[in-house]
Amino acid sequence: MHELRDLSSVIGLLTWDQETMMPPRAAESRAEQLSTLQSMYHQRFSEPRLEELLNTLTGADLPEEQRAAVRNMSTERRRAVKIPLRLVKELAQAQSLAVEAWKEARKNRDFKSFEPHVARLLRLRQEQADAWGHTGERYDALLETYEPGMKTARLEPLFEKLRAQLVPLVKAIAARPPPDRAFITGNTWSGDAQWAFSLELLKGMTFDMDAGRQDRSAHPFSSGANIHDVRLTTRIHEDNPFSAFFSTLHEGGHGLYEQGFAPKLHRTWATGAASMGLHESQSRLWENLVGRSLPFWQHWTPKLRTHFPKVMEGVSPEKVYAAVNHVEPSLIRVEADEVTYNLHILLRFNLELALMRGKLSTRDLPEAWNERMRQDLGITPPHDGDGVLQDIHWSWGEFGYFPTYTLGNLYSASILRSAEKALPSLWQNVRQGEMKPLREWLRTEIHQHGFVYYAEDLVKRATGAELSVEPFIDYLWQKYGPLYNVSRA
Amino acid sequence: MHELRDLSSVIGLLTWDQETMMPPRAAESRAEQLSTLQSMYHQRFSEPRLEELLNTLTGADLPEEQRAAVRNMSTERRRAVKIPLRLVKELAQAQSLAVEAWKEARKNRDFKSFEPHVARLLRLRQEQADAWGHTGERYDALLETYEPGMKTARLEPLFEKLRAQLVPLVKAIAARPPPDRAFITGNTWSGDAQWAFSLELLKGMTFDMDAGRQDRSAHPFSSGANIHDVRLTTRIHEDNPFSAFFSTLHEGGHGLYEQGFAPKLHRTWATGAASMGLHESQSRLWENLVGRSLPFWQHWTPKLRTHFPKVMEGVSPEKVYAAVNHVEPSLIRVEADEVTYNLHILLRFNLELALMRGKLSTRDLPEAWNERMRQDLGITPPHDGDGVLQDIHWSWGEFGYFPTYTLGNLYSASILRSAEKALPSLWQNVRQGEMKPLREWLRTEIHQHGFVYYAEDLVKRATGAELSVEPFIDYLWQKYGPLYNVSRA
Repeated sequence: MHELRDLSSVIGLLTWDQETMMPPRAAESRAEQLSTLQSMYHQRFSEPRLEELLNTLTGADLPEEQRAAVRNMSTERRRAVKIPLRLVKELAQAQSLAVEAWKEARKNRDFKSFEPHVARLLRLRQEQADAWGHTGERYDALLETYEPGMKTARLEPLFEKLRAQLVPLVKAIAARPPPDRAFITGNTWSGDAQWAFSLELLKGMTFDMDAGRQDRSAHPFSSGANIHDVRLTTRIHEDNPFSAFFSTLHEGGHGLYEQGFAPKLHRTWATGAASMGLHESQSRLWENLVGRSLPFWQHWTPKLRTHFPKVMEGVSPEKVYAAVNHVEPSLIRVEADEVTYNLHILLRFNLELALMRGKLSTRDLPEAWNERMRQDLGITPPHDGDGVLQDIHWSWGEFGYFPTYTLGNLYSASILRSAEKALPSLWQNVRQGEMKPLREWLRTEIHQHGFVYYAEDLVKRATGAELSVEPFIDYLWQKYGPLYNVSRA
Repeated sequence: MHELRDLSSVIGLLTWDQETMMPPRAAESRAEQLSTLQSMYHQRFSEPRLEELLNTLTGADLPEEQRAAVRNMSTERRRAVKIPLRLVKELAQAQSLAVEAWKEARKNRDFKSFEPHVARLLRLRQEQADAWGHTGERYDALLETYEPGMKTARLEPLFEKLRAQLVPLVKAIAARPPPDRAFITGNTWSGDAQWAFSLELLKGMTFDMDAGRQDRSAHPFSSGANIHDVRLTTRIHEDNPFSAFFSTLHEGGHGLYEQGFAPKLHRTWATGAASMGLHESQSRLWENLVGRSLPFWQHWTPKLRTHFPKVMEGVSPEKVYAAVNHVEPSLIRVEADEVTYNLHILLRFNLELALMRGKLSTRDLPEAWNERMRQDLGITPPHDGDGVLQDIHWSWGEFGYFPTYTLGNLYSASILRSAEKALPSLWQNVRQGEMKPLREWLRTEIHQHGFVYYAEDLVKRATGAELSVEPFIDYLWQKYGPLYNVSRA
């Protein structure tokens, strides 16, 4: 277990290096190194002796975290050996061709040239789902990769309910005037000062800089070798510094989770996130629920002013708060605000489900996409480049990943509601820049448990409530009602 | 071969990361990762099947570079399997204890507390030399690790001759007034500007920044995953920028060698340096023979002035040239100039040899050290911290490494003499900042060959001459004669 975990960490570090430090001409040799390590990993992971050992330990009288490690490793191994090598290779080849085709298709706004690739990946993923096994719902088998324990039958009604609540809220807000954002868009923001302020934010949210670091990359991401080595990245846009600030808070939220796993789980299959949705709940909690709150900007606006004295002259915390909570139906998911964002996800979820169930042909994807955009957001993509071709996920064949984003948002609201109950001075602390009480509560209730429990069970333990849409919807109305002067029907 | 080479590259990258990027709290987990990769490496490297394959290929009709790869891998493997696991472990344990003891001993200037460690390491290295095998001279077996093909019987008279020529030169120079260095020591040099100029130097010497990078670390070093990924470091001292500039040129020289191995050798045992001495010849060539020449500073002094307009006002290339060629007997090897430097090495070589032959007891090391310092450099260390305890090498048990530094200096002078013959406008090019002709000549004659030939044979091919001290001694007199107004007896 230790050896395999070390190998995984090393692969993670090399991937981080590739995106941040590696000189460009090293790309090919890096692919060789990664391929060598990955094949060593798979060789060791599929040794029959490992199955014997895991079988011996399954059901043995072990401490809870060791039982979880055995359970998680057994599950992953069982799933791995079910996929024939032929399918592994075919998938890898199809992905690599599809990514190149997607880049071209997106540039040329030409879905037709990409369609055969997505069709092939869909077929292969269906085959993979059947190899993994399911009880009639193939999507369940894919979902299990990212969200262990979660079922489509649980998600579908939950997401439908969420959609029914979001559409009227978005419509109500869209009828109101937007906040004043001229101080952001009308200025140039020095990259160096953005970087310095981003690091202050990261330290302010109690990210341990002795056990991690932040660098720049084309797309922000977080990756962690282990609790003592968590690597985050952000990007700097001189025309909008809040891109860097919120991506710092977002990746910092992931980072706090990674730094918070109990040390006793180190190098076992019980460390790491319980699910991608739970991981996302931690990034969203810091980015949106904390980072887009008024108390947060009451503390940080004066600090931002010291870095940008001219641009920020006379800009109040209230003005920042309004500007960073601008809600507007838009075409691109990754640029969407926290209200409309989930409608982008639910669209993708429903299309994926229809595809996987054979109810939708890949040829009909653009039409289905555009129709749903009109229904839910009231806008139509002018071309497929800003529509069905905008995400890289399907060119990886990653069906089943999108729901984790919305699950993250739902979990985050439920978790924060419990934190507010447990910590009566939470918002007063945030207003004073004191983030440690919240971080400690999250660490105790969520982070330290790693993957000892399934995500939904862990959140239930922490919040005392079943997964539902209410906390998130309540949060949105409480925040955007006053901001946009709208009220619940 | 490919897998093992990839593993080595990855170990190199992780070690680079450890010295440059890794957050401090990750030290323990990094040790775990490295240990896992190293044991995987050794497991694969010692598989009996590998020996069979190598035996099959030995003597087979293969292209020259593949024959070299088989030869090099066979040699390394034969040596590896000769060392019993017990000795490997004992050495690792003794080294790790000795390094800690050395740090304390150096701080406390207390050789007695370190002496048992060096005695133990000496014993273990003698045992290792016997296990590897030799023809009566144990030192040969150790030398082979760093300088394949080189023998003590070849080095001893060569080094004695060198010493006999260096001592009078140093004495003659020491009787002369030192150059004016007030513009260096009397000013503070901005770290940012030093960094920018260092990168210009690196590009100026034709180091390919698309296939490598430079960062900062506590001690400058170079490490290369392969020809497309060469990583250099330097350090910045605000009181003396030439420390950063010459370490950039030094590591850059190593880097050009690493970038220059023929692509067809990639991932085989024929890529990499032919010896540590040859590697050092490339760093010394750029640092000293080129980087401390007058034509070099005729080009670079105006460029340095653009970074430090105030400090460099009125400082001529001739003044820089004189200042950076300051020769003075001093206590510390790593701070020594290029004339006295080799006397520090020859001292260590002779002591190591006496230790290894059982002619000197570790208890008598400080006295032997100090006596030789008096003889050769005319100075006595005030305490062992600045004497016998100054280097980390013996706490690693690295007997046999020091000679490679002096071999590097000898090779560098011989190689440059040939380059001057082949390139009549070499110094005119340097004066114009045009380094590509020299780099191309080095690449053709030295770099591209990797470890296809033994170092001494390769240099003989490139220079047409046997290894000797004359080119280096001639170089020193030609340079320092006019600088210090001294002449050869």
